[in-house]
Amino acid sequence: VVRSNPVAETWASASVDLHLDLAGSRKREALERALRDAVRTGRLGPGLQLPSSRALASDLGIARNTVADAYGQLIAEGWLTARQGAGTRVADRSSAVEAAATPAPQASRPQYDLRAGSPDTAIFPRSAWLAATRRALTAAPAEALGYTDPQGRPELRQALAGYLARARGVQLTPDRIVICSGFTQGLGLICQVLRRRGAKTLAMEVYGQPRHGDIAAAAGLSTTTVPVDGHGAMIDKLADADAVLLTPAHQFPLGVVLGPQRRSRVAAWADATNGLVIEDDYDGEFRYDRQPVGAVQSLAPERVAYAGTVSKALAPGLRLGWLALPAALVGDVVAVKILTDRITSSLDQLTLAEFINSGHYDRQVRRSRLAYRRRRDRLVDALSRHTPWVRIIGIAAGLHLLLELPDSQAEHDIITRAARHGLALEGLGSYQRALSTYPPALVIGYGTPHEHAFTGAVERLTAVLARSA
Amino acid sequence: VVRSNPVAETWASASVDLHLDLAGSRKREALERALRDAVRTGRLGPGLQLPSSRALASDLGIARNTVADAYGQLIAEGWLTARQGAGTRVADRSSAVEAAATPAPQASRPQYDLRAGSPDTAIFPRSAWLAATRRALTAAPAEALGYTDPQGRPELRQALAGYLARARGVQLTPDRIVICSGFTQGLGLICQVLRRRGAKTLAMEVYGQPRHGDIAAAAGLSTTTVPVDGHGAMIDKLADADAVLLTPAHQFPLGVVLGPQRRSRVAAWADATNGLVIEDDYDGEFRYDRQPVGAVQSLAPERVAYAGTVSKALAPGLRLGWLALPAALVGDVVAVKILTDRITSSLDQLTLAEFINSGHYDRQVRRSRLAYRRRRDRLVDALSRHTPWVRIIGIAAGLHLLLELPDSQAEHDIITRAARHGLALEGLGSYQRALSTYPPALVIGYGTPHEHAFTGAVERLTAVLARSA
Repeated sequence: VVRSNPVAETWASASVDLHLDLAGSRKREALERALRDAVRTGRLGPGLQLPSSRALASDLGIARNTVADAYGQLIAEGWLTARQGAGTRVADRSSAVEAAATPAPQASRPQYDLRAGSPDTAIFPRSAWLAATRRALTAAPAEALGYTDPQGRPELRQALAGYLARARGVQLTPDRIVICSGFTQGLGLICQVLRRRGAKTLAMEVYGQPRHGDIAAAAGLSTTTVPVDGHGAMIDKLADADAVLLTPAHQFPLGVVLGPQRRSRVAAWADATNGLVIEDDYDGEFRYDRQPVGAVQSLAPERVAYAGTVSKALAPGLRLGWLALPAALVGDVVAVKILTDRITSSLDQLTLAEFINSGHYDRQVRRSRLAYRRRRDRLVDALSRHTPWVRIIGIAAGLHLLLELPDSQAEHDIITRAARHGLALEGLGSYQRALSTYPPALVIGYGTPHEHAFTGAVERLTAVLARSA
Repeated sequence: VVRSNPVAETWASASVDLHLDLAGSRKREALERALRDAVRTGRLGPGLQLPSSRALASDLGIARNTVADAYGQLIAEGWLTARQGAGTRVADRSSAVEAAATPAPQASRPQYDLRAGSPDTAIFPRSAWLAATRRALTAAPAEALGYTDPQGRPELRQALAGYLARARGVQLTPDRIVICSGFTQGLGLICQVLRRRGAKTLAMEVYGQPRHGDIAAAAGLSTTTVPVDGHGAMIDKLADADAVLLTPAHQFPLGVVLGPQRRSRVAAWADATNGLVIEDDYDGEFRYDRQPVGAVQSLAPERVAYAGTVSKALAPGLRLGWLALPAALVGDVVAVKILTDRITSSLDQLTLAEFINSGHYDRQVRRSRLAYRRRRDRLVDALSRHTPWVRIIGIAAGLHLLLELPDSQAEHDIITRAARHGLALEGLGSYQRALSTYPPALVIGYGTPHEHAFTGAVERLTAVLARSA
């Protein structure tokens, strides 16, 4: 099945054994994809020097500009780096991408883990969830267990409409909701619909989850980046993207909030350009210092696709998420959903509806908000006492914070040292989508450890930071 | 919980009767929240003019800036509008919210349904499934609820490896299995991997689920068709496709079995052309006249992607399926899975593992096999007594059979007449992918009705057929 076409055998000069298949008319896209895949899968390792665009063009029998453009795009996306005199190389971040995409072997799990992205799954309310499952299974009509509505069970869409309006100020009716299997699927569905409608470019915040760029690319969209400052994404730099993916309530991973003017401006941008805003409200329920800012969606419900999940408040393993969509998108998103997996587990949907309607969801949000808030306070306190030279960036919210390091320190050194001491850390660089001048920093996921391991993890962190000073 | 405090009674000038509770230290947040709630619930209607910040501040006994800031935030969020000379008003959009929760009218369901594709979801073993959920939730390590292995939980892959080897003769180890959300997702993952590897064409049996062709097309593959005769797909007509999708154990919807020579031939074709066989074993456990024929996969494990689900034996709404893959495909399929939905619900996976390991899966297969076999016997008996001129095609297996009609009859006429009598039927034409000379026929899904409705459905069918003669 694998039709590798050894067109690039002459890469020996660069010590690269890369097989590229550039059949088809879109050479540049094909080359970009092949290089991305090769970096992702590790066939091209970090630091490896690539052939010059002239040499590769000659090897592949395509125009030099095509290669140069592809290199440029991949540099912009952070896969490759170019430095004066050093040629084009595979960026270091690829190892992080690879690590994220490859299931970690059970044995090598670190003693402590302060990487971001996961809640403490030990506080998942197992017995309340089981009780909701029992009620859902008892009450479910038989047809709910069949090929039921691909848009999502009406019980859950009704429950979510109430919850999202109340908790996040989302303007919606149940018929605007599409239930999906986590944000990964939700973003993929929207990207595919955008592509089918002729969109070409998705703008993304310059720092964010690398996987989200991969999802857009898999759907055939190219990506550009928007800079982020202390007021969130710089909307006036959006240029002519067809859509933009934002984390307005709590920028991931920088932790800042999209400012009021920029909220209005992005709604105006969408109106003026007929663009779509994808609002990733991944942790909107977790703000500790004040009432969270409402969803941007409420400013322009026909221009914003709002997305949320249970992954932070309950557990990522449940794979339950939702989109609140502009009316004009609902039909197309459902059509793509049908070809993706037809429906999201209906029993899980009914259980979540029960869980929300019985008040357990709000209770669990409050309980875990309190737990994470305490952890953040303890972490901030420990850092300010032991390592006052690191700067804590971002609002008091969510399950992570950003630790800005002195310019003299390298993320990589600290991460390596921490790993030697049984503590898994991540640098801001792992989330960088394009060149950016942000100082070195660590993204600390204080939600990740189990409660009993939290104190140890914080002690390990401050010890490693103190030794790096 | 709502503590209304009539502190704003003097809003008479704005015709507003608004109760705000500003107890506590965070006046601004409390004010924002109260105003948002009031707009959302309609207590403050669209267009209503709010008091000036000075007037409201004086009424509430708080700083004017606090009110001005709160107004500013709510204007940014789109709840309020401010226009020169017109003061601050409730934005119009709120009316859209109120057009809310009108549940869509239930599509009128036919009295009887003999369309194929769904099992009788009323025989889903709810209490055994709930018990397995309890055991799974109790035993699950916390990490299972997080972003666990995208290939699937090891517990489930282990359980399935044993089951599939035993029940279907599949040759596999747990590391060859990828858990997916139903066959829809499994087929989509494989098609995307094929496309990324440069494949262009997927061959499909000339009769089959139309959606499967849509899935291939969405992944960028073009499709060709293979004719089907009494011995299944005509393998020597496969030509130069890159891959072929087959239903070897029980052709859907014709109901025939792929003959022994053709099983060998398709393995040889895959070897000779470096092609991939996708084996859709959608109802392989349901054969009534003899031991079912084993999976084609066992002839060529490195050339066949074997796919199965719980949709027939348990319920489609669970969305649990599996792929047993050639070693060379596993990594790529998992990489696409990560970008599709990362993982299939881990709690559902653990529950299914418990369900299989405790013997409940086998028990449920036996129980439903007996139930469907009895239905098929009753249906065949009724047809041979009342409408001997229709010919029953296909082996005694699965949840459907094919009724070949006399050439003089049109599928469409019978389907229309049945619909007028409250019976939903489908013609073979709905499953036809290309021109074919097969006679008119009906695809009868005897698994679809609930038990209590089955007798009525069969009577209705024979009556409609008798009137059509």
